[in-house]
Amino acid sequence: VAPRFFVPGLDPADRVVPLPADEAAHLRRVLRLRPGAIVQVFDGHGHEWRAEVTQATSDRAAVRLVEPLEPARESSVVITLVVTVLKGDKMNAIVRDAVMLGVAAIRPVVAARSEGGLVNPGRQTRLERWRRTAVASAKQCGRAVVPPVHPWQTFESYLESSEADAGARLMLVEPAADVAATRLRDVPRPNRAALLVGPEGGWTRDEIAKSVDAGATPVRLGGRTLRADAVPLIALASCQVLWDEEVEP
Amino acid sequence: VAPRFFVPGLDPADRVVPLPADEAAHLRRVLRLRPGAIVQVFDGHGHEWRAEVTQATSDRAAVRLVEPLEPARESSVVITLVVTVLKGDKMNAIVRDAVMLGVAAIRPVVAARSEGGLVNPGRQTRLERWRRTAVASAKQCGRAVVPPVHPWQTFESYLESSEADAGARLMLVEPAADVAATRLRDVPRPNRAALLVGPEGGWTRDEIAKSVDAGATPVRLGGRTLRADAVPLIALASCQVLWDEEVEP
Repeated sequence: VAPRFFVPGLDPADRVVPLPADEAAHLRRVLRLRPGAIVQVFDGHGHEWRAEVTQATSDRAAVRLVEPLEPARESSVVITLVVTVLKGDKMNAIVRDAVMLGVAAIRPVVAARSEGGLVNPGRQTRLERWRRTAVASAKQCGRAVVPPVHPWQTFESYLESSEADAGARLMLVEPAADVAATRLRDVPRPNRAALLVGPEGGWTRDEIAKSVDAGATPVRLGGRTLRADAVPLIALASCQVLWDEEVEP
Repeated sequence: VAPRFFVPGLDPADRVVPLPADEAAHLRRVLRLRPGAIVQVFDGHGHEWRAEVTQATSDRAAVRLVEPLEPARESSVVITLVVTVLKGDKMNAIVRDAVMLGVAAIRPVVAARSEGGLVNPGRQTRLERWRRTAVASAKQCGRAVVPPVHPWQTFESYLESSEADAGARLMLVEPAADVAATRLRDVPRPNRAALLVGPEGGWTRDEIAKSVDAGATPVRLGGRTLRADAVPLIALASCQVLWDEEVEP
């Protein structure tokens, strides 16, 4: 497999495409590629090309598009991960794994039992780090789509927004939660879905009630108590194996 | 939920049950429990009791069994994870997550593309660490069963063993592997299964051929390229959602 580079805003009408500074540095300093090397470039929106390096100097790099490539197949169900921000590096690992498992978008939210909350002074820095992680994960797993990581918002404001994530809203609840919940595998395959994942202490009764009022379906993954930071990966893997319509080669 | 303590070899005929040294230290120094406190003890083989602390001195702790408890339900499909040892802490996280997802046993193996291999001088230390991790994960996730973590062996010797893991042998192969593979969701629900997970560089063609000769079925999880250390969690989560027969409360 040829090395892959991410070029947001790539215009296929351009004869020569300059690489962003960090991608150019990777091409030159890490991979030590020279003009004539064959690489792949993708625009983060599902388009990928074979390309030839035309410039690789100390401070810039550029490629010439050779031909469009068939991008890696995206999931047939469009899934948004609405995830309560967890402490430290856990959230970064969640973003990395969610992109690998084909999520279409990530919406970080702050719930009643979140630690730190929206006043967290580092939140812009963390958001930028997650976005870099999303790019890195897309490069590694072969996706030509870089899912957007949206700005932090309160869970309440997410629930009130009628936008974007139209489709099945599936709220993951713990086995111990005092609420009637559908098993994930009994949920009919949707075209679009939002998976709502709560904080370490779980959703509050009020959050569950408001979500149900907003049309969400409480679902559970089984009878086990799962670590909060493992729930997004387990839930996404479960949805993919249940729903994804793989086109046979 | 009362604090839970692991007492391997617990004999319910004993009136008073001493706790192992590390569990006793946890009871006294971390939780600061005193005689009269109500706790839970489990034997690692699926039995759990409510118990009362009868002794909590500086160097020992003991409990009196009060009554047997209904243990956490185990998976209806008995799954053994046969996993190629990965570098560093990754293997420890795999053990932790596999226990949380209900695995029945873990068999670490060394494959052709493993790094380090069987000559790794730290392997006994690592095995002991994984066993402690299995105990800690069982305590945290509520299981009364502590799955055994078997000693390292070569993948070849695992394949030749006819023992223990009778049942469906499912070999996870990468989408790029040049082999006909069944989608996991098309595999009929077995009573027992072994999931075979390869190293970061994938299985060799020879390993796949020998496994098929030994009755294994190559399976794939979908069209994505997944990080090797995430495959066990994704595969186990997928099996559980596809196969597990949950008894409704």
